[in-house]
Amino acid sequence: MAVYTDVSAEDLTRFLSGYDIGELLSYKGIAEGVENSNFLVHTSAGNFILTLYEKRVAEDDLPFFLGLMEHLAARGITCPQPVKNKQGGMLGKIAGRPAAIVTFLDGLWIRRPSPSHCGAVGDVLARLHLAGSDFKLKRANALSIESWRHLYEHANAHGDSVRQGLCAEIASELRVLEGSWPRELQQGVIHADLFPDNVFFLGQKLSGLIDFYFACTDTLAYDVAICLNAWCFEPDHSYNVTKGRALLNGYGKVRALSTSERDALPILARGGAMRFLLTRLVDWLAVPNGALVRPKDPLEYYRKLRFHQSVKSLSDYGLE
Amino acid sequence: MAVYTDVSAEDLTRFLSGYDIGELLSYKGIAEGVENSNFLVHTSAGNFILTLYEKRVAEDDLPFFLGLMEHLAARGITCPQPVKNKQGGMLGKIAGRPAAIVTFLDGLWIRRPSPSHCGAVGDVLARLHLAGSDFKLKRANALSIESWRHLYEHANAHGDSVRQGLCAEIASELRVLEGSWPRELQQGVIHADLFPDNVFFLGQKLSGLIDFYFACTDTLAYDVAICLNAWCFEPDHSYNVTKGRALLNGYGKVRALSTSERDALPILARGGAMRFLLTRLVDWLAVPNGALVRPKDPLEYYRKLRFHQSVKSLSDYGLE
Repeated sequence: MAVYTDVSAEDLTRFLSGYDIGELLSYKGIAEGVENSNFLVHTSAGNFILTLYEKRVAEDDLPFFLGLMEHLAARGITCPQPVKNKQGGMLGKIAGRPAAIVTFLDGLWIRRPSPSHCGAVGDVLARLHLAGSDFKLKRANALSIESWRHLYEHANAHGDSVRQGLCAEIASELRVLEGSWPRELQQGVIHADLFPDNVFFLGQKLSGLIDFYFACTDTLAYDVAICLNAWCFEPDHSYNVTKGRALLNGYGKVRALSTSERDALPILARGGAMRFLLTRLVDWLAVPNGALVRPKDPLEYYRKLRFHQSVKSLSDYGLE
Repeated sequence: MAVYTDVSAEDLTRFLSGYDIGELLSYKGIAEGVENSNFLVHTSAGNFILTLYEKRVAEDDLPFFLGLMEHLAARGITCPQPVKNKQGGMLGKIAGRPAAIVTFLDGLWIRRPSPSHCGAVGDVLARLHLAGSDFKLKRANALSIESWRHLYEHANAHGDSVRQGLCAEIASELRVLEGSWPRELQQGVIHADLFPDNVFFLGQKLSGLIDFYFACTDTLAYDVAICLNAWCFEPDHSYNVTKGRALLNGYGKVRALSTSERDALPILARGGAMRFLLTRLVDWLAVPNGALVRPKDPLEYYRKLRFHQSVKSLSDYGLE
């Protein structure tokens, strides 16, 4: 749920007078995104999304995120497009927050993806990687392997309240990851958070991608590994090799993984599981007792990590 | 903020197949209403609101609420209209909850109403009272004066933590209200919660009313008194007699208040302030320490009550 900042009709009317998108007819705070406040805005020119960037997003990163969406949309990746104001800028200010208007995308996100959905995600991820290859701006991944030890130390004091022995297992896995993390693979723009709720479908057809606020410059194959974590496990946390094969084939048809990328996939997948295990663990431990908000279960990623640790060969992922 | 129940695209597609409103294109949980889960639904036929009725709404009351919206809309009061399913019913079930689809209303709610807005609210309230006069269903007001002592007893143990001496003042006021509450005034359909966030404007023109989930059969002039509380005070809780006069004139031009309704206005206004003081106090005391949700300030209505207690004549309200 995400409306951290209230926006008055008076303020929004004034803000929109700086744009050529018609007259304000209605707006609703929407329960979408976890970092920002989002509003669905209906004007005489159509539907738009207004995003207010809250404290957890660094203002310096906004040109990267907004520029990337514009860059990708111009190269055929359907995603929200920043709307320029009358001065030609993409960033404004409302209710004391940096804010942008982006186009509204129709589409639905799929709670129970099929292999066909996974194939479409592999395809679009590869197209995103290619489309991003000539994007000029860079942004370091704030949640890369370099950040994980810090997150672990943050969670260490109380982590075992979630599962006995969890912190020792994380420490041991961190040592493995830090010792063997592949640093020579091809880098580029990655989405870094391409979970089912960020991918829209209409019928069986992928209709667009949203939420580029974790996008950064990092290892392309790591983005594939994140998607395997996000798309190819069943509700009981078992890996579905058919879905994995569909996702990897969808990707490979557009951008072939190199031999070193293929070989690195198990360790990248372990890293992907570790990243979400750690951030979810920190969020879980940060919630006060009695709070109405229940964060996502960190142990989902502990179980996924256990699968990746057990992988014997690339065929376990469905890689042919 | 109000999305208590998650609805999957798969479930919603199935639900909408029972209606003739086109193909589902997108839906977003919206931060609106406090009792129910609401979604803005975009289909190939336009925009709609899907409401899932949560536990605090009695299922038996739903035919009253939905029937009333249909009844009022048919008589020229712009409000969401329940959409009938292929069987002709207005009520369905999704995600285990009773649910209805209503039409989407454009419009904006006004944070700082002017006298002209207040006049428009008086006008529409009177038209609502007239339009409701031939509505066949009845619903007792669950938050009428009969409920206040129970709420007071609920808040009594900790109420003074909000303000020293508050509970004694409430007890004393309750005795006055119970001893002098007017019970012979004209009854009918009242909205009972016509606050600024439930009234939409486009420009200076009132474009519609929403949220009929407190509507009930009760004293018509009490609804006027609630609106005086909701619309005619400044942010510092002082009464603005110009706004009061505009609201009462707007009402009176459509439905003249009788002499006994006019005479009862101060006591009805005290009752209106008491009702919101008590429910806000109970909500305030129910929130656990450290919770992320901050309920509305109950003392706003304590201060409004103090104004009503000080009223010497009807001209203090702007009644001519």
